[in-house]
Amino acid sequence: MQQNLQHTIAILSRTPPTLNALLRDLPDAWTLSNEGGKTWATFDIVGHLIHGELTDWMPRVRMILEFGESRAFEPFDRLAHENDSQGKSLDQLLDEFSRLRQQNLTDLRNLNLRPEDLARRGLHPALGVVTLSQLLSTWAVHDMTHLHQISRTLAHQYRDAVGPWAAYLGVLHCNGHSS
Amino acid sequence: MQQNLQHTIAILSRTPPTLNALLRDLPDAWTLSNEGGKTWATFDIVGHLIHGELTDWMPRVRMILEFGESRAFEPFDRLAHENDSQGKSLDQLLDEFSRLRQQNLTDLRNLNLRPEDLARRGLHPALGVVTLSQLLSTWAVHDMTHLHQISRTLAHQYRDAVGPWAAYLGVLHCNGHSS
Repeated sequence: MQQNLQHTIAILSRTPPTLNALLRDLPDAWTLSNEGGKTWATFDIVGHLIHGELTDWMPRVRMILEFGESRAFEPFDRLAHENDSQGKSLDQLLDEFSRLRQQNLTDLRNLNLRPEDLARRGLHPALGVVTLSQLLSTWAVHDMTHLHQISRTLAHQYRDAVGPWAAYLGVLHCNGHSS
Repeated sequence: MQQNLQHTIAILSRTPPTLNALLRDLPDAWTLSNEGGKTWATFDIVGHLIHGELTDWMPRVRMILEFGESRAFEPFDRLAHENDSQGKSLDQLLDEFSRLRQQNLTDLRNLNLRPEDLARRGLHPALGVVTLSQLLSTWAVHDMTHLHQISRTLAHQYRDAVGPWAAYLGVLHCNGHSS
């Protein structure tokens, strides 16, 4: 389907309450454990989502509207959350993500984007020319990528506990896919 | 980590409010669309979760406690929800799932399972001998398998809309894994 602003906002507005329902007060054994090595725990993933609200999505929307293809976006720092999240609880991160997302969606609605705005083009530092519509679609699918990762990271903690049922449980056979 | 009844219930009790936050009143364009072919739409997945509450998890818990390895579980009908869900709205399914899960968790708590109960063995019709602890772990990971599938199925609807960003979005590169 085509990007549709109302459909995109329908997903974006649901991610904070979804993560809240899934993660608030969940035991640390679930939320502070990762998939091994340098993979992220659920706690890290929520920190990464916060960083996107601060530096990625709406700043890039504004850059497309102000500068078009004449100036490339700032590269997104995928590890910045490691410092930002230090000393915080997961509940604090969930609150922060919810507040920032709400503000960003208010700002997005206030732009009153018209169909011709959605076709406007910007410059991604690695991918080249992209449209505002693609950026908004990516914001929503980025949420789903990390919900997908959280469900996999939680499931991973019981990978041995399920015994022979592991064969039937698709999430235990997912190898990530994010680079 | 080992199966821990409180940790398992922590996941199981959060799945209905999580799906409610993510899916209630989400436009049909998201929830009635699948990943192509005979794959399931989000609507189908919620129906499948309901069927598990009715026929799979607690009935199998009771079979292990009553019959041990002397009687195999009924095979789980993975397509039964197709009839059961007909004519219902997604909101009705979400309500039904929430009500059934709540009742099942009440029943589970009322069993007052002791550590030695968790080691009791039952007979799976295809996998052979399994333990009650493995069954409970599987119930939780099955929830995560389907949350993983829902996030992927939703993301799939914007697979073209994201343009070149598809390369970075792990969820768009997940091929399922469930047989």
